[in-house]
Parts: sequence; C-alpha cells; structure tokens
Amino acid sequence: MGEERVHRGARFELITETVELPNGRRVDLDLVRHPGASAIVPFLDANRVLMIRQYRFATGGELLEIPAGKLDPGETPEVCAARELIEETGYRAGRLEKLGAIWTSPGFTDEVIHLFAAFDLEPDRQALEPDEIIELVPMPFDEALEAIRRAEVFDGKSLAGLMLAARLLDARG
Amino acid sequence: MGEERVHRGARFELITETVELPNGRRVDLDLVRHPGASAIVPFLDANRVLMIRQYRFATGGELLEIPAGKLDPGETPEVCAARELIEETGYRAGRLEKLGAIWTSPGFTDEVIHLFAAFDLEPDRQALEPDEIIELVPMPFDEALEAIRRAEVFDGKSLAGLMLAARLLDARG
Repeated sequence: MGEERVHRGARFELITETVELPNGRRVDLDLVRHPGASAIVPFLDANRVLMIRQYRFATGGELLEIPAGKLDPGETPEVCAARELIEETGYRAGRLEKLGAIWTSPGFTDEVIHLFAAFDLEPDRQALEPDEIIELVPMPFDEALEAIRRAEVFDGKSLAGLMLAARLLDARG
Repeated sequence: MGEERVHRGARFELITETVELPNGRRVDLDLVRHPGASAIVPFLDANRVLMIRQYRFATGGELLEIPAGKLDPGETPEVCAARELIEETGYRAGRLEKLGAIWTSPGFTDEVIHLFAAFDLEPDRQALEPDEIIELVPMPFDEALEAIRRAEVFDGKSLAGLMLAARLLDARG
C-alpha cells in the first residue's frame, strides 16, 4: 500500500504509510525508520564501569548514559559496538558479550538497540563527532545502578544495559 | 533559533531545528516531539502479571509488552496509567506505585515513559482504540522475566518496567 517519505534526516527517515491491520482496518501510520544502534556497558575492572555524560538537545540537558551509536550501513551490531566504544571513550574492548536488545519505542519506530558488556579494555584513540559533547565518567558499578534509582528519568538503553549486566554478573556469582 | 515543523502526525510532531550546542557549534537537529506516556506492570496477585500481546506495524509483528499509552493533554502520568490500564486490559488498579521513568531514545525524541506497578486489580470495562489489536496474556511474573532472556529483541519500556518491579519486590523480601 502507499508509502510516502515525509522527511530524510541525518539520524532517521520519517515515513507515512497507509496500512491494512490484521483486523482489516486501514490506518495511516507514521514510522520513524532508524538504522538501529549498539550500546555498551564498559567494565574498567570487576567493579567499575565507564559511563558518559552527554548533552542531549531532545531532553534539554545532560544525561548519564552508557556509550552508544548508530549502525553504519552493512555493519554488524558487534562491530558497531566495538567501534563506538573506541570513538566515544578511547577504549578498545578485548571482549564483548551480548546482553540483549530492545525496541526503543515500538509504537512509532523500528529502532533496535543491541546491548553489550565490554571487558578487558585497552587504551585507544577517542574520535568524537562534531556534534558529540561527551564527558567520561568512570564510577563503581553499584553507583551506576544506584543512579537509576536516584534519577527522575533515566535513559532506557542505559537502564536496560546496566540491569542486564548486573544479572549476567549475578548469574556467574 | 529557527524551528520548523516538518510533520504533525497522530502520535507525534517532527521538528527540525537549528541549534547552537554548548560548544558553540550550530547544527540542524531533527526532534520527534512526543507527549509522553505511562506504562504499567499489572499484578494479578503476588506471583502473576498481566502482559499483552500486540501487533506493532513498526516492528513488523506481535510483541509481548506491558500495557501503556500516551498522556492526554494536561493529564498526569498516574491518571494516564490508571486510564490506560482500564482501556487496554479491562482492569482497574486499586493501587499504583511509581517504578521510575525512561527517555526512550534521547538522540532524537523527548518521549518519556513513566513506569508504574499496579496492585489490587478489579474488573472494569476494556475500551480499545480502533487501531489497537491486543490479546491479554496473564502469566507468572517469573515467566515474564524469563521472556526477557529468551526474546531476541524485547520492548524497552517492558524490560525496564519488569526489571524495576522485580527489584521493588526483592527489596521488600
């Protein structure tokens, strides 16, 4: 059925489509078509993680997050995670472990964020984009988990990544 | 600075804005302006939750989720949570408890989802929207948590809500 591209931006496309639902109704739906992303919980050692503080125009201020970034065309989630960790933090992961993946807001976007834990970090060269303003915030893992409780609003991928990483570590004792 | 509305849809507006970042750079940013939403983890009893299975055009299939919906103009998150729970599931909450809130994707949208746990449910009248196709899926709470592990991709608000509810219940013993 009809599909119209309303807008092509740097981060996503907006599509409006006339869709027939499984119940036979036809509706016009707006869809933010996104390439997907990877996000990483970087462990500096057994008890410390490397968070980032980042200015976010959309939310009107700084957020405490885990490093993340969009998939390049043809890139696998794991390669993206390794690349974005280096670019945003200046650390290379010796080992990446998949934690899961989330649909960020399935009511209007196909965006998926793949979540990884990174271990055995080695220094490499940070390479920020011109529109990235990032402060590195190393902190105890427990404190990052506690920040979820204290924050009025936390970022969804960071909450999911930190809680899944905690469960992974708990399961291993 | 300049702000242009590119699209007004039923679920959100798309704005393109020329922004001066804290580092002095000017960039054009696309922003999906969203009214925000509430989502609910409904406890049927101490060990069972009421999930929903819903067709999502954006993700191309059915998702297992917690009930949720957009804030009406002027509505508080708690009133929205109570209303959406009734409309989507046909149950009224005797008690709502705040679990937290997430920015769903702060790189491009101001959408916030407020997360609640609902207790002491009483039957009421379900009232679905024409474009909502929802199947009620009561299940053991442990099985819902296990579904997060099994799913290739889970929905962000549902993962956050279920894991925060588990932590709330654990903290109470």
